Amino acid sequence: MNLNYFFYPRSIAVIGASNDQSKLGYEIYKNLKSYSGKKYPVNIREKEVLGDRAYARLADIEGEVDLAIIAVPREHILNVVKECGEKGVKGAVIITAGFGETNDERWKRAEIEIVNEARKSGVRLIGPNCVGIMNTKANLNATFIMEARPGKIAFVSQSGALGAGIIYKTIRENIGFSKFISLGNMADLDFTDLLEYLSDDQESETILLYLEGVKDGRRFASSLKKASLKKPVIVIKGGKGRSASEAVSSHTGSVSGSWEIYRSALRQSGALIAESIDEALSMARAFSQPLPRGKRVGIITNAGGAGVLVADQLEARGLEVPRLSEQSIKELKTFLPPYASFRNPVDMIASARGEDYKMALEALLKDDSIDIIVAVSVVPTFAGISREEHALGVTNALRKNMERKPVLALFMAGDVSTRAREILEKEGVPTYERPEDVSAAAQALYEYSKVRGTVIQ
Amino acid sequence: MNLNYFFYPRSIAVIGASNDQSKLGYEIYKNLKSYSGKKYPVNIREKEVLGDRAYARLADIEGEVDLAIIAVPREHILNVVKECGEKGVKGAVIITAGFGETNDERWKRAEIEIVNEARKSGVRLIGPNCVGIMNTKANLNATFIMEARPGKIAFVSQSGALGAGIIYKTIRENIGFSKFISLGNMADLDFTDLLEYLSDDQESETILLYLEGVKDGRRFASSLKKASLKKPVIVIKGGKGRSASEAVSSHTGSVSGSWEIYRSALRQSGALIAESIDEALSMARAFSQPLPRGKRVGIITNAGGAGVLVADQLEARGLEVPRLSEQSIKELKTFLPPYASFRNPVDMIASARGEDYKMALEALLKDDSIDIIVAVSVVPTFAGISREEHALGVTNALRKNMERKPVLALFMAGDVSTRAREILEKEGVPTYERPEDVSAAAQALYEYSKVRGTVIQ
Repeated sequence: MNLNYFFYPRSIAVIGASNDQSKLGYEIYKNLKSYSGKKYPVNIREKEVLGDRAYARLADIEGEVDLAIIAVPREHILNVVKECGEKGVKGAVIITAGFGETNDERWKRAEIEIVNEARKSGVRLIGPNCVGIMNTKANLNATFIMEARPGKIAFVSQSGALGAGIIYKTIRENIGFSKFISLGNMADLDFTDLLEYLSDDQESETILLYLEGVKDGRRFASSLKKASLKKPVIVIKGGKGRSASEAVSSHTGSVSGSWEIYRSALRQSGALIAESIDEALSMARAFSQPLPRGKRVGIITNAGGAGVLVADQLEARGLEVPRLSEQSIKELKTFLPPYASFRNPVDMIASARGEDYKMALEALLKDDSIDIIVAVSVVPTFAGISREEHALGVTNALRKNMERKPVLALFMAGDVSTRAREILEKEGVPTYERPEDVSAAAQALYEYSKVRGTVIQ
Repeated sequence: MNLNYFFYPRSIAVIGASNDQSKLGYEIYKNLKSYSGKKYPVNIREKEVLGDRAYARLADIEGEVDLAIIAVPREHILNVVKECGEKGVKGAVIITAGFGETNDERWKRAEIEIVNEARKSGVRLIGPNCVGIMNTKANLNATFIMEARPGKIAFVSQSGALGAGIIYKTIRENIGFSKFISLGNMADLDFTDLLEYLSDDQESETILLYLEGVKDGRRFASSLKKASLKKPVIVIKGGKGRSASEAVSSHTGSVSGSWEIYRSALRQSGALIAESIDEALSMARAFSQPLPRGKRVGIITNAGGAGVLVADQLEARGLEVPRLSEQSIKELKTFLPPYASFRNPVDMIASARGEDYKMALEALLKDDSIDIIVAVSVVPTFAGISREEHALGVTNALRKNMERKPVLALFMAGDVSTRAREILEKEGVPTYERPEDVSAAAQALYEYSKVRGTVIQ
């Protein structure tokens, strides 16, 4: 499915663009100003919007319009969609709410009429009741919220505001997205269509779904299965419990269904299930690393307690933290102090420097009993150890990572770790701040290696 | 047990204080400089340390010494402890590592000899193999790490570096501690002693333990039970799995024991068990609120998806998200728009303003079917809604909280929420950023209300 007219439109019309700062049409048009394609504000009451000539109607625009963003009161939507068809618009995003998600039969019906109209005239719809769409690569922000950081995760959210919350959070946490799609009521395009498009999208390394419920489970599962064979698809399911699933129906007009049924369908389709937003983001960021050949994790740390917490988390998630090979232990003993621990986790104690990380990592990269490596650093500031040393040690060791084993890094020192994290992230090594996050990342690598059949154990 | 000589010493000697920036004794003495009591650097090779006259030996100090911080090589510790006894030192913190946590029988024995010496001369010991202690209220930082923010949580950590990592993290997250104690090998003072002291400490509202293993389980359980009746005690247990529990023994010289046995002992003693650091901190911060009378949570939100995720989390933790009373629903309908949801979670939709939060909260405060309230806000920035309005609405409603119900706030908008969070935190309303954290807080309030017998349901 080619949805490029949504993400790389040559021209965009914003129906309901406004100079009134209290209107969504103002925020949307303002956000679109930096897009390089043609932009047309459409508003019968304005002569110009934010300095651009405004058009009373779509039909008044001289050139072609690929994409329409619609933010007018709900009673006008049907007519606007009809006009979109007449103008030859290919895709329309309906921001306006108040349709299938209400308890009002009249407006539930109106949503169906809008879709029928769109199908008749060949316009594909996203929404209604959504926040809009983004393509960070093209600098396209067709929403009324702040633009996400650029990155490699494609994020599709059934909930608009929650999607917005996740974008705001990731701006601070320096996590980036390739595309963001707020699906809303999914009156026309739904998860299936987006999965099909995004699984072939070169800009997206992983796909992240916030999903409350789908209408056609079989079709969804089949598209999920296909997409999962191309790239990891991570799913956060909202509406698992009783009250939450009731809330879903009044939120996006979907039926959330039994969580048991969803879970087994998601698993069988090869999706990775995340229990929280942070877990999902942690998983998604892991895939800059190669897939592992098994589930045996080697941990090196400069703080025993941190190694203990990571090992606990990994074992709770079904991964293994086995003993190292005799050869590894022999090697570690040549440079680590006598009261380091040569078990796994390898506790190099607080005096460990960058060179120790490098040598320990090299030993574990060669060790056939280890498939995934987690390098932990806690407060590497005292005793004259510079803050970036660990990161440089890991980076240097990775230059010789001929085994292509995945390496993840955990830093538990707040702002003290910022520079070290930057160094590693630049080298493509995902860094985390919490034992549960780095463990979720390791779990995701292992689970997805099974989906792709790279496990040889 | 009175340990005030550790936390409010009139005078402190630092054995091993140094001008050499690569030594722990340098960092420790530097950190102690801002303490108002007397400070004496002790180092046979220095004339002065950081501008203060240095003493070759403890005995050379003219005045009394309440507390000694010891950071000299391990072979000198026994002798230094003997000198402490001769000098009349009341408490000593041994930073130096390399004793019971090693595999070396000689140094395991040395630790026992040190304790015997201390007992003989009436000196109580913290450590060895620890980071030190802090009392933020007294501006006492007797560690080699950055000082924690001041606050109401007493934090006792068996792991030094992990404790340090948590302090560094909370500096960034603006979470404060009353006291911090890195227990290390617990050769003398252990969790039991600290629990006894901290449960009577007026500066500490809650106690947080990072625990790997204790030697005398029965004594520990009994002190935990007593402390829990005075204030909430939250426990993170490290070393649950096989490999992790092996790591524990080489880390702080303890036996981590079976997690099943620990869990049941912790529960029976009234402790609150946290599965992660963030969960523990979320729980600890909840207790600025009154205890609930039951487990029925009412959720108000401006974003459906966020309400759904909170409800899922609460239900997974054994809390309830019941329907509201007819009276509440009637009241909500007088001011919320028609396509809001009047179930629980109450989805006030994105147009909700501060006044809506205030009125919805007032309805739920009166509602007899609700024991705990969670107010959720996601991206309250668009459509002209100011960033702080929600917080002010909640604050205003709380001024009339005659029912004394606990109220927790969740903001899912990254830096956009900073100001609103500050307003609420200042009013004593704990604010969170993740559905799982606010839900853990609600769960902690409910669990602890059972321990204290305030549940009436």
